[in-house]
Amino acid sequence: MKTLRFEIEAVCPETGARAGVLHTAHGPVPTPVFMPVGTQGAVKALTPRHLSDEIDARIILGNTYHLYLRPGHKLIEKSGGLHGFASWPRAILTDSGGFQVWSLSRLRKLNEDGVVFRSHLDGSSHLFTPESTVDVQFALGSDIMMTLDECTSYPVEERAARSSMELTVRWARRAFRHYREGMKGRPPRHALFPIVQGSMFAGLRRECAAALIELDAECYAIGGLSVGEPRPLSLEMTAATAPLLPADRPRYVMGVGQPAELAEYAARGVDMMDCVLPSRGARHGCLFTHEGKLVIKQNRFREDLLPADPACRCYTCRTFSRAYLRHLFMSGELLFHTLATLHNLTYYLDIMKRMREAILLGKFPEFWKATRAFASPADPISE
Amino acid sequence: MKTLRFEIEAVCPETGARAGVLHTAHGPVPTPVFMPVGTQGAVKALTPRHLSDEIDARIILGNTYHLYLRPGHKLIEKSGGLHGFASWPRAILTDSGGFQVWSLSRLRKLNEDGVVFRSHLDGSSHLFTPESTVDVQFALGSDIMMTLDECTSYPVEERAARSSMELTVRWARRAFRHYREGMKGRPPRHALFPIVQGSMFAGLRRECAAALIELDAECYAIGGLSVGEPRPLSLEMTAATAPLLPADRPRYVMGVGQPAELAEYAARGVDMMDCVLPSRGARHGCLFTHEGKLVIKQNRFREDLLPADPACRCYTCRTFSRAYLRHLFMSGELLFHTLATLHNLTYYLDIMKRMREAILLGKFPEFWKATRAFASPADPISE
Repeated sequence: MKTLRFEIEAVCPETGARAGVLHTAHGPVPTPVFMPVGTQGAVKALTPRHLSDEIDARIILGNTYHLYLRPGHKLIEKSGGLHGFASWPRAILTDSGGFQVWSLSRLRKLNEDGVVFRSHLDGSSHLFTPESTVDVQFALGSDIMMTLDECTSYPVEERAARSSMELTVRWARRAFRHYREGMKGRPPRHALFPIVQGSMFAGLRRECAAALIELDAECYAIGGLSVGEPRPLSLEMTAATAPLLPADRPRYVMGVGQPAELAEYAARGVDMMDCVLPSRGARHGCLFTHEGKLVIKQNRFREDLLPADPACRCYTCRTFSRAYLRHLFMSGELLFHTLATLHNLTYYLDIMKRMREAILLGKFPEFWKATRAFASPADPISE
Repeated sequence: MKTLRFEIEAVCPETGARAGVLHTAHGPVPTPVFMPVGTQGAVKALTPRHLSDEIDARIILGNTYHLYLRPGHKLIEKSGGLHGFASWPRAILTDSGGFQVWSLSRLRKLNEDGVVFRSHLDGSSHLFTPESTVDVQFALGSDIMMTLDECTSYPVEERAARSSMELTVRWARRAFRHYREGMKGRPPRHALFPIVQGSMFAGLRRECAAALIELDAECYAIGGLSVGEPRPLSLEMTAATAPLLPADRPRYVMGVGQPAELAEYAARGVDMMDCVLPSRGARHGCLFTHEGKLVIKQNRFREDLLPADPACRCYTCRTFSRAYLRHLFMSGELLFHTLATLHNLTYYLDIMKRMREAILLGKFPEFWKATRAFASPADPISE
């Protein structure tokens, strides 16, 4: 049963970067795609109209862990799924909650069955199993669901990484069994993606990929990156994994990246990415621009009447000066978050759009080289 | 010299409520008008586009005290005035700062010359005089400027109220002298409104009005209300003052009111009002609706799939459920503030629109009666 159609329009002969379209039940998603993060059923500080009309996001992320705890997936199901609840008419991908159980909740206890964890909100105890998180995501009505995985810390010893990876594979098998059962009698609108783990051990990544390919999934994700490792290592793991995954299906690297890294991942055959950086950075006063990062509170912007990014076409840059944005930030005005997030996401999605055009035109290597020349090593914002 | 044109289209023969249009250099303002408050150069959580395209606000308020302290009126002047700085193409009224000196700053010292106060931001010392606040407002480029007044606390003894009122009158005279001098060589785009004070003493209000009328101002404001007095007393003072003011000029009561009070003020011949209640209430989770106030955090809205106000046509009500709004509020999502403020201001401005139509159609008494029947005595939100 196919729930998605992935159409590859062009492949860069030098790098393997691909341009395509992922056809979902909630519309087409041109790839490579960067997916804005809407953790709690909203991309922070933006209306769905900002996202569709201004930023032209085709797919956003929701977070299973958060939405399960609050307001609860049953309520969301009653509201017409997350699409109805959040009034978002385009595609939605939900993660499985594995990463948040690992990063947010305390007192988690992992066993073969699943993971018992305490809510970071009220300390209440909950169990996630590979099957239950599929059911929660069915209730959310996600176009793309993710299997429950165990995300290992960095650094970790190989033995621990192996045992964690093997658990992730067994969980993925259970998730798929449950998913295929659950899809009987449902419209073919929900895909399930398994997640390649293996920490920073290329051998484990290879083993994991090989095992997951047996599931014949419609897409494969690479997880367990952006967990504190040096960034070149994230790219190395991606390069070691992506070529092993089926070439006719999308590849999704979870939780990346910096603006200058987007082309790095595409160059390694990655089609989908997500990261909180543009929205979280915005809230901390960090604006990504063609001239580099602007830390808007700096005094040098006090009387700067230029737009945040003179090369940007977003509402924020068409309308307001750096001096005004700085004033809003210094004054704690809520409007700053809206305007800065609107800009940062536009900036990210514009990179993806230009990258996609470059691939289609056979000019990706030039594009890639240009972003490398521009990349700055320092990064004041942590993810 | 005329800087505004006030056109009266209809007067309710029973009450004296008026429907008109205030023509400013930044467009026409149908009256009675409720003016959203943009204290620091932004209506909290809204873009100017929300205000113009969704809410159809024709005039907003800016705050001289706040903008003088941060980012500074000189910077705003360089940015093309507050219109350019905040990218607001319609009319702007700025208060004089008198009320904020009284309510926000500490260690203020008043003398005949003006008021020395300490910034609530950094404790630095500043002087406002009737002349300097006119100059600050010239720099802000306001369509409507206000004279510096002394706002007395409530309750206050009559002797103190008299001496304060008399100071306010002397300051208004100085402000007008300075303003008329300053307008030589400037385009006729900035009006200056004096403020009737006198606390809750009708006799003092009358005296103050009589003295200010000699200034031949284009509009008269009634200040010193909403300072803690019982609300019927605010209306009584308005009723005692408004008829003394020139019938051919707009009357502005500062800092009011509750939704149900808007018609009360209009019924007393008031044309302009402003209040932080719709925007501040929104941030505290209070939604004004045709069914009364919704305190969105209440558990009864947890699974309520109705819009906040089924009778409202705003983006928020067209698009989202109470359950979703409650979820955003409980989750601390910034988007809540945008959606709730958008709704509350639409609700207020819709009341004004319907009220204006009622006056034009000769049906204001019926409209007034209907809002009175609806008014609820309790008010969980303080201004």
